[in-house]
Amino acid sequence: MLGATPFETIALWAVLGIALLGLAYALFLRRQIMAEDKGNPKMIEVWEAIRQGADAYLGRQLKTILPLIVVLTVALFFSVYIVPPSAEALERFPSLTPDRVKLVIGLGRAVAFILGALFSLMVGQFGMRMAVQGNVRVAAAARTSFDKALKIAYRAGTITGMLTDGLGLLGGTVIFMVFQKAAPDALLGFGFGGTLLALFMRVGGGIFTKAADVGADLVGKVEACIPEDDPRNAAVVADLVGDNVGDCAGMAADIFESYEVTIVSGLILGLALVAITGQIKWIIFPLLVRGIGVLSSIIGTYQVRGKKGEKKGNAMAGINRGFYTSAVLCFISFAFLAHFYMDEWRAFLSVGVGIILAIAIDELTKYFTDTHHTPVKEIARSSRTGPATVILSGLSVGMESTVWAILVIAGTILSAVLIYWGQPVAYVLYGVAMTGIGMLTLTGNNVAMDSFGPICDNANGIGEMAGLEKDARRIMADLDAVGNTTKAITKGVAIGSAVIAAVSLFGSFMTDVTKVQAQMNMPAAEHLLTTGIRVSMPMVLIGMLIGGAVPWLFSSLTINAVSRAASLIVMEVRRQFKIPGLMEGKVKPDYKQAVGICTVAAQKELVGLALLAVLTPLIVGLTLQVEALGGFLAGVILSGQLLAVFMANSGGAWDNAKKTIEDGLYGGKGSDAHRAAVVGDTVGDPLKDTSGPALNPMIKVINLVSLLAAPIIIQYRKMSLGVVLFVAASLIICIVAIWYSKRSGLKEFHQVEESVCAPTQKTE
Amino acid sequence: MLGATPFETIALWAVLGIALLGLAYALFLRRQIMAEDKGNPKMIEVWEAIRQGADAYLGRQLKTILPLIVVLTVALFFSVYIVPPSAEALERFPSLTPDRVKLVIGLGRAVAFILGALFSLMVGQFGMRMAVQGNVRVAAAARTSFDKALKIAYRAGTITGMLTDGLGLLGGTVIFMVFQKAAPDALLGFGFGGTLLALFMRVGGGIFTKAADVGADLVGKVEACIPEDDPRNAAVVADLVGDNVGDCAGMAADIFESYEVTIVSGLILGLALVAITGQIKWIIFPLLVRGIGVLSSIIGTYQVRGKKGEKKGNAMAGINRGFYTSAVLCFISFAFLAHFYMDEWRAFLSVGVGIILAIAIDELTKYFTDTHHTPVKEIARSSRTGPATVILSGLSVGMESTVWAILVIAGTILSAVLIYWGQPVAYVLYGVAMTGIGMLTLTGNNVAMDSFGPICDNANGIGEMAGLEKDARRIMADLDAVGNTTKAITKGVAIGSAVIAAVSLFGSFMTDVTKVQAQMNMPAAEHLLTTGIRVSMPMVLIGMLIGGAVPWLFSSLTINAVSRAASLIVMEVRRQFKIPGLMEGKVKPDYKQAVGICTVAAQKELVGLALLAVLTPLIVGLTLQVEALGGFLAGVILSGQLLAVFMANSGGAWDNAKKTIEDGLYGGKGSDAHRAAVVGDTVGDPLKDTSGPALNPMIKVINLVSLLAAPIIIQYRKMSLGVVLFVAASLIICIVAIWYSKRSGLKEFHQVEESVCAPTQKTE
Repeated sequence: MLGATPFETIALWAVLGIALLGLAYALFLRRQIMAEDKGNPKMIEVWEAIRQGADAYLGRQLKTILPLIVVLTVALFFSVYIVPPSAEALERFPSLTPDRVKLVIGLGRAVAFILGALFSLMVGQFGMRMAVQGNVRVAAAARTSFDKALKIAYRAGTITGMLTDGLGLLGGTVIFMVFQKAAPDALLGFGFGGTLLALFMRVGGGIFTKAADVGADLVGKVEACIPEDDPRNAAVVADLVGDNVGDCAGMAADIFESYEVTIVSGLILGLALVAITGQIKWIIFPLLVRGIGVLSSIIGTYQVRGKKGEKKGNAMAGINRGFYTSAVLCFISFAFLAHFYMDEWRAFLSVGVGIILAIAIDELTKYFTDTHHTPVKEIARSSRTGPATVILSGLSVGMESTVWAILVIAGTILSAVLIYWGQPVAYVLYGVAMTGIGMLTLTGNNVAMDSFGPICDNANGIGEMAGLEKDARRIMADLDAVGNTTKAITKGVAIGSAVIAAVSLFGSFMTDVTKVQAQMNMPAAEHLLTTGIRVSMPMVLIGMLIGGAVPWLFSSLTINAVSRAASLIVMEVRRQFKIPGLMEGKVKPDYKQAVGICTVAAQKELVGLALLAVLTPLIVGLTLQVEALGGFLAGVILSGQLLAVFMANSGGAWDNAKKTIEDGLYGGKGSDAHRAAVVGDTVGDPLKDTSGPALNPMIKVINLVSLLAAPIIIQYRKMSLGVVLFVAASLIICIVAIWYSKRSGLKEFHQVEESVCAPTQKTE
Repeated sequence: MLGATPFETIALWAVLGIALLGLAYALFLRRQIMAEDKGNPKMIEVWEAIRQGADAYLGRQLKTILPLIVVLTVALFFSVYIVPPSAEALERFPSLTPDRVKLVIGLGRAVAFILGALFSLMVGQFGMRMAVQGNVRVAAAARTSFDKALKIAYRAGTITGMLTDGLGLLGGTVIFMVFQKAAPDALLGFGFGGTLLALFMRVGGGIFTKAADVGADLVGKVEACIPEDDPRNAAVVADLVGDNVGDCAGMAADIFESYEVTIVSGLILGLALVAITGQIKWIIFPLLVRGIGVLSSIIGTYQVRGKKGEKKGNAMAGINRGFYTSAVLCFISFAFLAHFYMDEWRAFLSVGVGIILAIAIDELTKYFTDTHHTPVKEIARSSRTGPATVILSGLSVGMESTVWAILVIAGTILSAVLIYWGQPVAYVLYGVAMTGIGMLTLTGNNVAMDSFGPICDNANGIGEMAGLEKDARRIMADLDAVGNTTKAITKGVAIGSAVIAAVSLFGSFMTDVTKVQAQMNMPAAEHLLTTGIRVSMPMVLIGMLIGGAVPWLFSSLTINAVSRAASLIVMEVRRQFKIPGLMEGKVKPDYKQAVGICTVAAQKELVGLALLAVLTPLIVGLTLQVEALGGFLAGVILSGQLLAVFMANSGGAWDNAKKTIEDGLYGGKGSDAHRAAVVGDTVGDPLKDTSGPALNPMIKVINLVSLLAAPIIIQYRKMSLGVVLFVAASLIICIVAIWYSKRSGLKEFHQVEESVCAPTQKTE
């Protein structure tokens, strides 16, 4: 295979085996969890409501997006018919006629797309279901022992982690083994399927969770002054469901997608080096690194536990122990790999930079959002002069944080330049891709830590609603607090990896376009690798300006969606508060209604936003040509990164500023300062959990669509009637999508508002 | 002169004459205004307080920035000694030795820098002083007639407008006439002086005005529930002074700078075409266009008046009549110019696109920020669910608006491409520059309309504080409302022109760098016009990422400065409220104290921010080279435009949402909805009047520094000890500047806070 040595062939199969081992480990953990006790009937009742809400959301979402998936599968299959098959494809299947090769490549791309989408969906769906199975059991276990509760919570999260690792590695390896040097076509399909589904899960989950959260807080904490998770609040179950669909399904799909895309771009850029050097090690290395990562994660995650039978323990210490075990194992193995297999240290250095990058972004995120440093303290302080100053200082903190984060990213790219100093650009791009590979090596641990958050949060909620014992509640509250920290850390890694992945894809775009241009016999002087993407050309500058605008459009639409859905929840809860006996706790609120509102609201935006992400690069590419499309990608990456970190960190800082006040600062709960801080937190919620994270998969969907569409764009580089019609139709679809997204739900909203808001206002 | 025909020589002298005529017109109007009555002693007393506050601010500011100006003048003089004099310079002064030529060019650049700075300062200072002279006279005139009040207000504003026009045109024309084809060196100095001063006036004025405004609102309207401009509020005079230093001095300097920079880039890009075609018409055309603009403005602005002696009139109609008179005159003259002089219509089309762009941006701004359209209505509606939803919907509106605005800019560049289809890039860049020339043709009218705003606002404030008659108050309130609209329109033009000017400078950067590279005998393949600015090169991508971050850093620091200064004002007003008898109106508050706080706060940031703008391009250029510096500029332009419009429009929309509620919607003043809307308005204030507008001059300062530094960067393209030391020192200065900016005032703030905040909180 591509001149692989026997060792390399064995290594490939071993990686495949490790991927399957990861999945088997997930199954093994699942059996462990399912054998645990679910607690008393009251707990099960609350839990059932959460479970049904989560299932209903996932079912509904699947139905919404299925038609688009079908259309895209067909489009991807036929897309290979537009350009002649690549020389690599013909070489890979020497016994087939060119037409047959086309069929195989087309099928490969379509099947890989479905595979990517399916895997992403599985990670999200199974992961979330396991989280839901886990949370009630954590609550039950907390009644007997801290150790057991921690173990169940972490292992339930690890299942998602292992699914992410296992499926990502499996897909990438299998596709490479089947298609070998013709792999890029299918790999792009695989990457696209994964990112697209992640976009759906992220946006849908983000809107659901924050509509419920913001709505519940606005009307519960702020207006009625009842505590969080109070059973009288009709939105409280929706809020718990939201934690699962947002933090669990959404985040898992998102990280899966980053994990997968870094493999895809690593393999594509590796293949470019294989073509230059004739050595297959550039491909084997990233796969082995990832394989070692999976093994280390299995060993590390299994270490996470407290002391047997203890009532109070340090969960963070246990989780960190697991993480460092994995990290040390990885580090030593990578060094061996570099010395004995690669015969050079540069790839190792690049992977190492990835690990340093993860740590640096983590530290930055902590500095700007945790309660021990100046930024959050200043926000809390500004709460004494009211909500306006809280908002202003939070905006200022978020804006500053994004500056440092992008400097860290720039430093990472610079280090790739320095590591491969004097080598052609292809090596530098490979270095950046390896940084991405390194950064996400310990995805198993990271996702486990992330899912741990919503599991503990939900367990705590179930505990509150089922009125569990004080001791058990304390254990759950402790776990919940640790979960908030681990969630925040993962979010930083997700954002950082997104941009590194996007930059690698940007690199793949260059190589890929040049290959197609060569294949179409365009003169070498016109190849993209020769000309470069020149923002000094007016058309490319225009592309860049348009690209820079896209993340702002996305953010505007998603914030809008959340605030409208949240308003609907506010109206609904206000309506239910007026039901006689409810506030006294005699009548149970109708939780399903609120879940239903969130479910519907979360679906409305999906198709429109996905169409924008898919069509804008096509429009720009077909009208302004590939180089301008490159400018467009650069604009998307720049704006996307800056906005995503700005929103994530402002939101995180407001959240924690509120927490410090709730812990007693400036008058504590119920004070004017607290009220002001709650406004900040509420504004931050959709920024940090919907709009910001949605930009990660969006950036990559756009990059992958550009890569997939590049051959077509080059083919149709002269305007024809067909192209004009296609562009016009796409433009119309985009405008309708924006219009629909802004309008959707507005009518119901106004109706509900008229019927509920006016009378309620009087009673305030 | 450069092969000018007799007609062209006469035309040049005529332009010079028109520039002087504009200044004479300003003097003439000044005499008219000064002859008017200043009203009763009470009015004069209030007015004296405003005048003294404004003078104190300007004096203090001048002292703060003078050292930096001196240092930069010296640096600019010696900068020409680093590279050999250009071939153009040697040709221009054939009788001088090369050393003498260097001296002349160095002196020219230094003197032009001082001239630019001085003119910018004069526009800001004289303009503001005239506005202050005007406002009390408008208040006095409103007691007798609407017509007279309108005329005084508009003519006082026109003085600033004519200064802007006259000085901008004078400087550009004189420099060109003296240096001819060697003009770019001096022109860059002229542009740099103007933009740098504008940055100072913008940032200083913006911080002053919004600290006072936000502080006064927070404590007056929100906490104590007393009306705006209530004399018991200690910050009310500071607020009135702020309107002058921000909306008047800051805005006038900003527009002067745009006016001047579009001339500078128009002449530089025109000279490039002169070099290609040998025709001087490319230079004469923009100067003639601007000259015609000044004449039309003189005629148009003089038309603005109401009907004689009437008590109530339509001020907007009068102002519009003046504007359209000027516009029609321009349009006809330009067509003549194109047909009879240029012998081609493309330059005319480009100028026309500029006018269309101004209208398009105006309409967009209106759609997103005025009270008649959906966005503001939705924000107002969301006030019913509290401040958090108001903030979220405002953010969403601002984000969407910036998307459309950048699409309009992209469309403008595209139209330049289409107009000059098939021509070399130099023509396209010239087209973009002519668009900027066209957009700012009617600067005289625009600045008059803008200054009209704060003049009427102040007149209204003086009326309230001096307790004038009801009839007079109504006239002033009407004028004030119209002033708000005209101010908003100007803001849109200022932002749009900033980016067009920046894109032209970006184009000048390309041509200029290439010229220097050729002069240093670098091979043609390495010239920037040949390679282009390739964001696909890792170093250039890094430059772009860093550039994209700079506007975010600026915004973070300026927002921070405003909110800290506003908090100080809140503390101060709270302290004064506790003075016995003050709330009953028996004791007068100490207005000077609040003015002093704002003055000090406004100075603290100036030098730090200016150093960031000057040093970051030097750091990037010297470490990553000129092409990466080009990427840096692209990043600055993209991010800067997106952020500036986002902030300006969110702020404007919040402002007007609050106004619709104050007009009676959702419970009107004092309702919960109003309280929520006031939070939005307060958050928006620094965004729309400090951070957003400060980005306009910042973008251009960075572009001009890059242009000025390009020869030095090319000269020192190999790292030497000197370069390393310089870069290290610059980095340290930047970090200290950021640190100082974040810390400055913090200590006083905490001191005041401890002494005031805690006891006040109890009484709430």
